[in-house]
Amino acid sequence: MKPITRADVVRITRDARELDDDAIVVEEPLEIRVGDRAVSVTLRTPGDDFDLTAGFLFTESIVKADDIESIRHWGSPNVVRVDVRVPVDLARLQRNFYSTSSCGVCGKVSIDALRVQTTPIDADVRVKSDVLVKLPDTLRAQQAAFDETGAIHAAGIFDEHGTLLRLREDVGRHNAVDKVLGSLVREGITLDRHILVVSGRTSFEIVQKAVVARVPILAAVGAPSSLAIELAREFNVTLLGFVRDGRCNVYAGINRVC
Amino acid sequence: MKPITRADVVRITRDARELDDDAIVVEEPLEIRVGDRAVSVTLRTPGDDFDLTAGFLFTESIVKADDIESIRHWGSPNVVRVDVRVPVDLARLQRNFYSTSSCGVCGKVSIDALRVQTTPIDADVRVKSDVLVKLPDTLRAQQAAFDETGAIHAAGIFDEHGTLLRLREDVGRHNAVDKVLGSLVREGITLDRHILVVSGRTSFEIVQKAVVARVPILAAVGAPSSLAIELAREFNVTLLGFVRDGRCNVYAGINRVC
Repeated sequence: MKPITRADVVRITRDARELDDDAIVVEEPLEIRVGDRAVSVTLRTPGDDFDLTAGFLFTESIVKADDIESIRHWGSPNVVRVDVRVPVDLARLQRNFYSTSSCGVCGKVSIDALRVQTTPIDADVRVKSDVLVKLPDTLRAQQAAFDETGAIHAAGIFDEHGTLLRLREDVGRHNAVDKVLGSLVREGITLDRHILVVSGRTSFEIVQKAVVARVPILAAVGAPSSLAIELAREFNVTLLGFVRDGRCNVYAGINRVC
Repeated sequence: MKPITRADVVRITRDARELDDDAIVVEEPLEIRVGDRAVSVTLRTPGDDFDLTAGFLFTESIVKADDIESIRHWGSPNVVRVDVRVPVDLARLQRNFYSTSSCGVCGKVSIDALRVQTTPIDADVRVKSDVLVKLPDTLRAQQAAFDETGAIHAAGIFDEHGTLLRLREDVGRHNAVDKVLGSLVREGITLDRHILVVSGRTSFEIVQKAVVARVPILAAVGAPSSLAIELAREFNVTLLGFVRDGRCNVYAGINRVC
């Protein structure tokens, strides 16, 4: 399946109506199975499904990266099956599933238990501000699908020198983050001197994924939410927002910006 | 709780760094309970919690609007309890909960069952294109919180003459839709001659919510996904995208645009 399709459209302007066709980002459901059990259906843009699956299971603290034995499509291009080396407590997961309009808040028993149990990030990497402010432009310039559709989120991992290591796109902003983190985690790459750049805003969920993946710096084109800032400060993530036009706002962890 | 808070920020420009404070959209978890059972935790902007709750339960086909007996906060400003007049099959809901990075896809047993079971919308309302293309600007002009934070989604319901009837804002785009639909559904207002306008893009979930609420026209500032177009065509929803600058694209249901 391709990430872009075409659809008939009537373009209406002040003076005319014309029938045309338009590039459209593909959105299809992906069912993620751990062994024989379906644990999630996410609406995603097809492509990099194994990265998405690994990233989702890892950043939602369902499966440790090392515990994944195999990832494969399972009877359909919209179903991925993961087999793991150790038992996963799927009964617990199942019992406590919540839906969320902000995504990924699942398998937790209550509001108080939403937050991941881990330690603050102590990585001592420092990155120049004039490197940081350029990262979203670099990400944007590499975004293949956005130019055509105007409708796809991107997430990228950069090294401390501002070099783009990996880029992933998806109709869902959490999926783009899962894909890019999953792709590197699957290769066993640690991200302790790296920067996660997202094309949109930052919410609780995005910061939480960065914390679980131990990424010390998170930079977004858009604004952070109150909970994103709170979580970044608690776990010592450097959080940048409105990174554009040679400027940025630093909401947490200014010590890593030199 | 207020929808906007303030946070310390270091503003970095080419020439200077200055400490300032910034208006930030509040994101807090809301637990939705039906009777004694928690059915969802959503990360939302506080305010209009009862509209959000009613809209979520209604548009996700968990509870019919008429079946709601009471909605109230329950021991915390972040917990809402709904009591219903008829039994809800929470066991079914619980058994089949899925998470989703695109939100709201919960309580369904498989990919094939994601789609709501209902009939196409046969409302014969027709709206002038020069009315339609102005709606997002009207919505934007009324958005109180966006101006301050640059980070909040809006959803509005307009009548066929282009008058804004109701506006709701939220950090989550699905939540903004749930809030605005819930606020009208709670008053028993049918939406069969109305237009739902959203500040962002349209995905499967947004169209599905419109279908369940029987709204015949959906207009978005951003692009639709492939599944949004597919669903709109299947259920005869008029779907507009890129509605801005006096122009729009019509992806489905052109017969309602005159």
